[in-house]
Amino acid sequence: MRFLPMQPIMTKSKNNLNKEVQESPLFWPVQYKNNVLKILDETRLPFQLSFIKVRTPQEAVKCIREMKTRAFGQFLVVLGTFLLVLNKYFSRSNPEILRKLEATAQNLNSSRPTFPFQEVTSIVIHWAKTAMGKNMDIKSFVQKNIEGYMWAIRTRRLERVKRIAAVIKNKDRILTHCNVSGELAMAAYICQRQKKKVQFYATETRPYLQGAKLTCWELKQMGADVTLVADNAIGTLMLKGLVNKVIVGSDRSCANGDFANKIGTYQIAVLAKELGIPFYVLIQPSEKIKKGKDIPIEIRHERELLNFEGKRILKGRIKGFYPAFDVIPHQLITGVLTLHVN
Amino acid sequence: MRFLPMQPIMTKSKNNLNKEVQESPLFWPVQYKNNVLKILDETRLPFQLSFIKVRTPQEAVKCIREMKTRAFGQFLVVLGTFLLVLNKYFSRSNPEILRKLEATAQNLNSSRPTFPFQEVTSIVIHWAKTAMGKNMDIKSFVQKNIEGYMWAIRTRRLERVKRIAAVIKNKDRILTHCNVSGELAMAAYICQRQKKKVQFYATETRPYLQGAKLTCWELKQMGADVTLVADNAIGTLMLKGLVNKVIVGSDRSCANGDFANKIGTYQIAVLAKELGIPFYVLIQPSEKIKKGKDIPIEIRHERELLNFEGKRILKGRIKGFYPAFDVIPHQLITGVLTLHVN
Repeated sequence: MRFLPMQPIMTKSKNNLNKEVQESPLFWPVQYKNNVLKILDETRLPFQLSFIKVRTPQEAVKCIREMKTRAFGQFLVVLGTFLLVLNKYFSRSNPEILRKLEATAQNLNSSRPTFPFQEVTSIVIHWAKTAMGKNMDIKSFVQKNIEGYMWAIRTRRLERVKRIAAVIKNKDRILTHCNVSGELAMAAYICQRQKKKVQFYATETRPYLQGAKLTCWELKQMGADVTLVADNAIGTLMLKGLVNKVIVGSDRSCANGDFANKIGTYQIAVLAKELGIPFYVLIQPSEKIKKGKDIPIEIRHERELLNFEGKRILKGRIKGFYPAFDVIPHQLITGVLTLHVN
Repeated sequence: MRFLPMQPIMTKSKNNLNKEVQESPLFWPVQYKNNVLKILDETRLPFQLSFIKVRTPQEAVKCIREMKTRAFGQFLVVLGTFLLVLNKYFSRSNPEILRKLEATAQNLNSSRPTFPFQEVTSIVIHWAKTAMGKNMDIKSFVQKNIEGYMWAIRTRRLERVKRIAAVIKNKDRILTHCNVSGELAMAAYICQRQKKKVQFYATETRPYLQGAKLTCWELKQMGADVTLVADNAIGTLMLKGLVNKVIVGSDRSCANGDFANKIGTYQIAVLAKELGIPFYVLIQPSEKIKKGKDIPIEIRHERELLNFEGKRILKGRIKGFYPAFDVIPHQLITGVLTLHVN
């Protein structure tokens, strides 16, 4: 079996993708090799850069549900899981492949509700059906297509990193929320090479603290100037002119331009609009859902809010409410940085 | 020495102030007796209901700086510290009293910047000067006035509790932020007696988690229906109609109606305005400062944000920015619940 085109997490010495940009571990947090998916365990960052070895679709789904990986990592896990299934269960092409791939797709689709798993898995199933219909070698056709798809996405994301860097001007004070899987940190690296002075503010992003644990860490790794703020300090930051631009990612987008992202993004967008601060979003365009209010929003278990690193922060039977995402109407968006993938 | 009119924290069996309302420990978190100030240690709640014994003005200032007490508790500590000084250092009236009270006032005024310490201490100094000018017994005059002042405030606050309960209607979903020192919880108790069905949402209020640790706890103690949410979930709560009213406290107010409160209140007010949700504030009116932008805002040490219960949540040298309060322009306020004190 060939080594697949996912990039390994690079060590510092090998870290130059090219002269312009350095890769963040969060940019490509999943590797596939020898029937094993290695998934960067984001819940252990920034203290440990460790990987979870996944050998079955069930283990992959568990990793997604427990948020060991998230955002773009989920996309890689989906494609990687199909590679795993193709290579592990089928030594050669076989009409059983389609059934197995469909079962895998179903498992993945039901892992978490907001991220568009179905949009990714349906592409793979379509390839399998196409190959079957044309009497082609299903295994090699699907595998090649997945590899090509990954490369395309990788290339487009690297291009987008440069476009993000172009949006960021000298003396900008950028606010971000949650974590955009490496792209913002890599853009920060480019900005430094371009001698732009940029300040970043990252929200904590309760309850998982992705802003504190992932965004601050990767921006710092890139040598950027980053400051952590509580999620409740956004209004004051904006009012006092301490930030002049917002850049966030998205977990799902709609035909009309509305998008879903980590809970808290909506209120940041409202404040930005109110105070005249440009609001940019990294979008993977999709036409499957018409408008934002049709995006299913995941409500996660209250224990994730009521406990902090295993320790309960409240006493007694208090309820918690943790919607994991919110929806941002397109009217609040200043600019969109898309991934154009055909 | 007489037992002063601060109410002890009541045990459950003695807890009825009258038939209508039950007292929360946070409503009157400081006691003074036998030259000792007993200050409820709010940083140990909800797990421990314990008190710090304070015997000098320096110890009182330390308690305030370390946020062992906060909000209304600070008012009681200020007055209690003057009682301590009067009784501990002066067996009888003495012209040295004024100098000692002035030094105490200066210490207290410099403890934290946003709460109007100077407005409270200057009243006490005024009483001392009045007594001196009229050749009265300074010690007993000042002491009696402090006691009377406390009773007046206590009475007004109990009246306000009833007015809060009147603002809350059947089937309301009330959002609050940080902690309003017992009044909201006591109003919740009245509402239950009035058979109103009310749901409360409390924000976590990072980084000190006053919402989780104090507000949820005291609302629950009163038997109220309370749900904790992260500070970043406000926008979604409002957009989805899960809250229909906001009630918050204030740490300082201005002549034009602007006020300062715990960081995060400003963004809640902007969202409430944007989404047409009534926003109520508990105010201690003051004319000393003209408008909100003149209120000094305390910036607390970044370690309070970068650590969670003594454990560092980030790796490496990341900066943190923790403004402790923000300012809410009066245009965002729907209704004010004042303490009318002459």
